[in-house]
Amino acid sequence: MRDLMSLTARPEVISLAGGLPATDKFPREVFERINACIASNGCAAALQYAPTEGFDTVKQDIVTVMSEEGSRADPDHIMVTTGGQQAIDLVTKTFIDPGDVILAESPAYPGALTTFMTYQARVVHVPTDDCGIVPDRLERVLSELKTEGRRPKLLYVVPNFSNPSGVTVSLERRKVIVDIAARERLLIVEDNPYGLLRFEGELLPTLFSLDTVENVVYLGSFSKIVSPGIRTGWLAAPSAIYQKIVLGKQAVDLCSSSLTQMFVHEFVHSGDWKEYVADLRATYAARRDAMLEALAEELPQGSTWTRPEGGFFVWVTLPHGIHTGDLLVKAIERNVAFVRGDAFFVDGQGTASMRLNFSYNDEERIREGVRRLGEVIREHLELRRSLGFS
Amino acid sequence: MRDLMSLTARPEVISLAGGLPATDKFPREVFERINACIASNGCAAALQYAPTEGFDTVKQDIVTVMSEEGSRADPDHIMVTTGGQQAIDLVTKTFIDPGDVILAESPAYPGALTTFMTYQARVVHVPTDDCGIVPDRLERVLSELKTEGRRPKLLYVVPNFSNPSGVTVSLERRKVIVDIAARERLLIVEDNPYGLLRFEGELLPTLFSLDTVENVVYLGSFSKIVSPGIRTGWLAAPSAIYQKIVLGKQAVDLCSSSLTQMFVHEFVHSGDWKEYVADLRATYAARRDAMLEALAEELPQGSTWTRPEGGFFVWVTLPHGIHTGDLLVKAIERNVAFVRGDAFFVDGQGTASMRLNFSYNDEERIREGVRRLGEVIREHLELRRSLGFS
Repeated sequence: MRDLMSLTARPEVISLAGGLPATDKFPREVFERINACIASNGCAAALQYAPTEGFDTVKQDIVTVMSEEGSRADPDHIMVTTGGQQAIDLVTKTFIDPGDVILAESPAYPGALTTFMTYQARVVHVPTDDCGIVPDRLERVLSELKTEGRRPKLLYVVPNFSNPSGVTVSLERRKVIVDIAARERLLIVEDNPYGLLRFEGELLPTLFSLDTVENVVYLGSFSKIVSPGIRTGWLAAPSAIYQKIVLGKQAVDLCSSSLTQMFVHEFVHSGDWKEYVADLRATYAARRDAMLEALAEELPQGSTWTRPEGGFFVWVTLPHGIHTGDLLVKAIERNVAFVRGDAFFVDGQGTASMRLNFSYNDEERIREGVRRLGEVIREHLELRRSLGFS
Repeated sequence: MRDLMSLTARPEVISLAGGLPATDKFPREVFERINACIASNGCAAALQYAPTEGFDTVKQDIVTVMSEEGSRADPDHIMVTTGGQQAIDLVTKTFIDPGDVILAESPAYPGALTTFMTYQARVVHVPTDDCGIVPDRLERVLSELKTEGRRPKLLYVVPNFSNPSGVTVSLERRKVIVDIAARERLLIVEDNPYGLLRFEGELLPTLFSLDTVENVVYLGSFSKIVSPGIRTGWLAAPSAIYQKIVLGKQAVDLCSSSLTQMFVHEFVHSGDWKEYVADLRATYAARRDAMLEALAEELPQGSTWTRPEGGFFVWVTLPHGIHTGDLLVKAIERNVAFVRGDAFFVDGQGTASMRLNFSYNDEERIREGVRRLGEVIREHLELRRSLGFS
């Protein structure tokens, strides 16, 4: 984070590396109105400790937000967390002992992979295509593990506009994955921070809502639809699982911030959030379009990239055996940054790929960033050719 | 937390149980001024991700706050945490493997004990008296462990107005403890959330400032001097130790809240915090006095209690073999709450004691609370006598 942040902070660098939302779109008058509401309701409560599981008002707001995607959650089984990352940490802490196997989509969010590593899990990637996790490959991974005498503890999946791939799991696949997991008693951890940032296509039911055997923990976040600076996320879990996870929360930070929970509450309860999310969708859709157009113009033949229907990221794969790690220093010299693809795997895959973010920069900077990137790639290819590679 | 919070929420209950600061003393106009500053500086940054280690401005504020107690900290080795509890969690996560021994003052803050337990540490209590940890007893514990072939990993101590005892470690003891720890290469975790809430007596140097061998991790918190609802604490550590701890932070919550860090910054940087802390000191001193007076009036002969020079808590020990756990239900029926003493030990000690909080309620409620408590204790003693217990 520090490195990305310091890159982002240098204005001459166009960072397509981070995963930052466009918080400059947040209306200052709304910010002021929210704070005025908190002050007039009495700031003592906003400055005091909160219940470990979160304020009931905020749990109710979360029920509202989840219902926008068709999920029905029980507020008694919702816990407010200190950002979505803490939800990942708490679930991992609760269920994983050293050496346990976690299945993760590939490529996978590196923040989750890092957390899995801190608990000494063994991560096994499950291959994906443009419709998300491939059920046959999931079955194959499971059967290979079975012959080793291993049973994975959980399956980590970002079903909508995944970080980093931008890919969405199709409805058919969702059903099959939920069924396989139920059969195998494999806990699904559904991490859905981007779901409401859909620019096109149909809204798909969450795995949480398709689950019939209380086998899915749902992780949500206000980071992408309100603000990451307020560090407010949540998890919703079946009763038995929920109780186990709650025990861990108090030990890690007692409770999440009252002040920022009230910020969320004022924003969601007033309804202001819907307009804001609609604005974000329009902003990000235009930025994605700018990025896809620029990629088509700038990248060499043989390059491929995903076409996300929402979210923050495009996943680019380069031809001719280019290792994106080899490009990064040169790219940063040329004042453009990306994340190398192998950062999204634990096993060295992804070397020909990179993650590009389109949520943070405006269209002009995106176009210029991709132009610089195209230049770096072309030069790299020429160098390779001159050295006798491909 | 949930149980205490719900008790506190019932207005007819005088809760002497919690550890809540008097956030109703926070001036609304200051709250509004801070939020106006954040808005006028541009709320985009307040709503964005922060660096994992915290904002440089806030680290500088922490240097200022620590200098008030005579500590000199290097901002490069300060990490902003999500409340003081997270600092305890991160240090434990970094240094403790299952089965490792942690030495803890006795009685000890239960939030720390819970965290130690989640990492499967073996906690060994070190006896204390009115001057804090007793060095001879520390030596004895160390040598007993040595004969078992065990070397404790860290020593946990709250040197000022400890939670729950209210006791302060004397200057002489501080020096001896730091020396013993240096000799034994025993990492000291100095948890000092109350240090600036001293009502009387001389300010004593922190263990962090007495350390000459880079062997003390210092944990600080804005919870008691600004607000717990903003979940902002910190740790300061020697360089080698610091690097290890930072690695853990990103995995647990990426970064602490930008919004609440900016809240802290506006409050500390403007100097407003000094007046507020002075107000808190006066408020809490009067409340402590009310509690000590009421205890002298209401408790049966043979009872003893500490006389804290600051902080939040008085530790009461009852005579005649009373088990405070036996009193609690009756006390709550009589609308007064405390925390039973055995909650502050891992080994069943403390059954004759209770922790009473004086920071949250005003003098009148404190007097009434202690009066109810005295009544419950007297009735209990009579019942015991009538049943033939002395």
